Amino acid sequence: MRIEVVNTGTELLLGKVVNTHAAYFGQELFKLGLRVQRQVTIPDGNDIRTVLEDAFPRCDAILITGGLGPTNDDITREVVAEMLGRDLHLDEEILETINEMFRSRGLLANRSNDRQAMVPEGAEVLPNPHGTAPGLYLPATNDGGKTTPHLFLVPGPPRELKPMFAEEVQPRLSALRDPDDRADIWHNFRIYGVGESSLASKLEPLLEPIEELELGYCARLGEVDLRLIGPSAAIDVASEIIRAEYEEEIIVESEDSIEQVIQILLSERGETVATAESCTGGNIASTITNASGSSAVFRQGYVTYANEAKIELLGVSEDTLEAHGAVSEPVVREMAEGCLRVSGADHAIAVSGIAGPTGGTEEKPVGTVYIAIASRDAETFAKRHFSPSDRVSFKMRVTRLALDLLRRRLRGFSLD
Amino acid sequence: MRIEVVNTGTELLLGKVVNTHAAYFGQELFKLGLRVQRQVTIPDGNDIRTVLEDAFPRCDAILITGGLGPTNDDITREVVAEMLGRDLHLDEEILETINEMFRSRGLLANRSNDRQAMVPEGAEVLPNPHGTAPGLYLPATNDGGKTTPHLFLVPGPPRELKPMFAEEVQPRLSALRDPDDRADIWHNFRIYGVGESSLASKLEPLLEPIEELELGYCARLGEVDLRLIGPSAAIDVASEIIRAEYEEEIIVESEDSIEQVIQILLSERGETVATAESCTGGNIASTITNASGSSAVFRQGYVTYANEAKIELLGVSEDTLEAHGAVSEPVVREMAEGCLRVSGADHAIAVSGIAGPTGGTEEKPVGTVYIAIASRDAETFAKRHFSPSDRVSFKMRVTRLALDLLRRRLRGFSLD
Repeated sequence: MRIEVVNTGTELLLGKVVNTHAAYFGQELFKLGLRVQRQVTIPDGNDIRTVLEDAFPRCDAILITGGLGPTNDDITREVVAEMLGRDLHLDEEILETINEMFRSRGLLANRSNDRQAMVPEGAEVLPNPHGTAPGLYLPATNDGGKTTPHLFLVPGPPRELKPMFAEEVQPRLSALRDPDDRADIWHNFRIYGVGESSLASKLEPLLEPIEELELGYCARLGEVDLRLIGPSAAIDVASEIIRAEYEEEIIVESEDSIEQVIQILLSERGETVATAESCTGGNIASTITNASGSSAVFRQGYVTYANEAKIELLGVSEDTLEAHGAVSEPVVREMAEGCLRVSGADHAIAVSGIAGPTGGTEEKPVGTVYIAIASRDAETFAKRHFSPSDRVSFKMRVTRLALDLLRRRLRGFSLD
Repeated sequence: MRIEVVNTGTELLLGKVVNTHAAYFGQELFKLGLRVQRQVTIPDGNDIRTVLEDAFPRCDAILITGGLGPTNDDITREVVAEMLGRDLHLDEEILETINEMFRSRGLLANRSNDRQAMVPEGAEVLPNPHGTAPGLYLPATNDGGKTTPHLFLVPGPPRELKPMFAEEVQPRLSALRDPDDRADIWHNFRIYGVGESSLASKLEPLLEPIEELELGYCARLGEVDLRLIGPSAAIDVASEIIRAEYEEEIIVESEDSIEQVIQILLSERGETVATAESCTGGNIASTITNASGSSAVFRQGYVTYANEAKIELLGVSEDTLEAHGAVSEPVVREMAEGCLRVSGADHAIAVSGIAGPTGGTEEKPVGTVYIAIASRDAETFAKRHFSPSDRVSFKMRVTRLALDLLRRRLRGFSLD
């Protein structure tokens, strides 16, 4: 089954936005046992026609992103309808949904939105709960020898596209797939604190004898996703080997986030965590609360950027701050223990570091951070870590490291 | 001058790697006054031939990434040579450079590297100091009416490609550019709180008479980037019109973030802001502290997820919580005013809402949020807002709205 992806969007070609659709579709289709054979990016406007004319004869299905919006250069819907010789009609239900969305946000619906409610004859409407323009599915046709592939028209913004893909496109593509094709499965290990290359050099000799096993790596902010693809028997054998090598480093065998894992671990124990953040500026608390239901395990957090805030809110001693500086192990210990005390939580995470680009010294360069974990029933652990990078990546890396230390404490593993 | 980009790499289509080349080329070419008109990703292997056959007649130049390596599916060099009817010869100098690179890393050079030293007749070699495969430049030809475009063959890995592009490709492309071509400039308006469609329907009739002006939109979490491209005289005229229509809604005329804008506004006044967050869970504080130098304007923040935290840390009254619930205007006002008092800051932002997916009621469905801005020298402002979406997007949207309300206060605009 030949599938191609067409992304429309001048901003993609101007480099204003990185095109993540291609990778997303590649991953998602692979899970269905399908592959993207080609991906094309074109500007908003007329190129869509020539690209589709070229692609129609060789494709079984085409996923088209973007060009469904309300402005003049959004013409995907109209071009496709014309190429297939289908009339467009105004779908009152869609129009009402769009108008209702505008009303609910206190905005006036605009006449230019009407275009988004136009539906080509024979198309299935794919609802878009996260935006205005619905998607469209036009099943393949075979009209006296002239065939057209299955066409999926989906919106460009990832927040709208991803849920629509999962809810609407994925089941339809699954149904189109040949059931006799070999059914590979996909198993993910999310691992923290082991580099991609050391994972590879340790595991590849061990996994090499397993036939039909494909390995993939994706590294991100200290985490590595190790992806196994193959028949389920091969995955089982490989998984046992990986578990034996990396028992403590495996965050989870899925694509669940570290914050979801922590929430489950805390919930199981009926415990809570509080945060005391300096250089991460609230990002640890925000990450913990990204997990739905986090209110059961997180009650409060402190962002103590200034020294006075560390003293007043967490009870860090002025002497310690003076003697060691805010970015130091003694201070981060006092922050964590103070946070535990004032919050009444069972665990506290504290961080203090130098995010940069300014503020570094020879002894404590930009990228230096101290992290502490205090718990009601265990000794406070603190460590120095060095992770120089741009400011936002630094905050994200430190957040992940801090959450992984808490995971290790909750799992009873060594924190060193 | 029509330029297209062809990226070869199965890993790009499998979604193992996000294709950042397209955005990189788009940005770099724009700086030269050039544009990428189309970008195609294909698997390693034979597709390169059909894609180039299709692209040759319409292009002035093609940038091809990948397929220059030592393995069997790296065939770009050979396919291009064959299409142009050029012989390949072994370049001893390149071979020696590759062998030397292997020796310097303590590795044995492999015979499969010889392929990387093959050069088509008439090609210029583009040195690759960061890897083994050099790039190749094949100037355009016009052979008895049969023309071929300028071809740049460059390696796929970004750390090899980017230096080669800067050192070797960019100067050659610059020289090809017609000096009489209009030098467009690019001007960005970042606008908050106006939908893409209402922007378009208001502005397009006003800007339509301006010749050679191109408009682009990119919407994200309540912000819209309105991009003007054209000669500077056209941009000047259009900018005046946009400023007159959206004086209060323009966050900034650049791509600076809202947090950078706020930091500048606060710094100019020598003022500070503190945060009291419930549903955003620290994301407002974290966003403020993403701006470098934010420690001058942000000292502390409170993440008060639980009611007890609102009472203990911010002094919200139990009676108010009981009478109105945590997600209510009276509570968010008390949070903001309490935050102002306990932090000693000049401004305080407070939010309380229902991020979902659970916790909604008929009166206060998921997506309901109250936001308050308290300031030392102005009345507290509070508003209800409704923005249903997934949990993480909700937090990001509410963060942007709250920061925009602070921007309005600092600029002296109405908050309603």
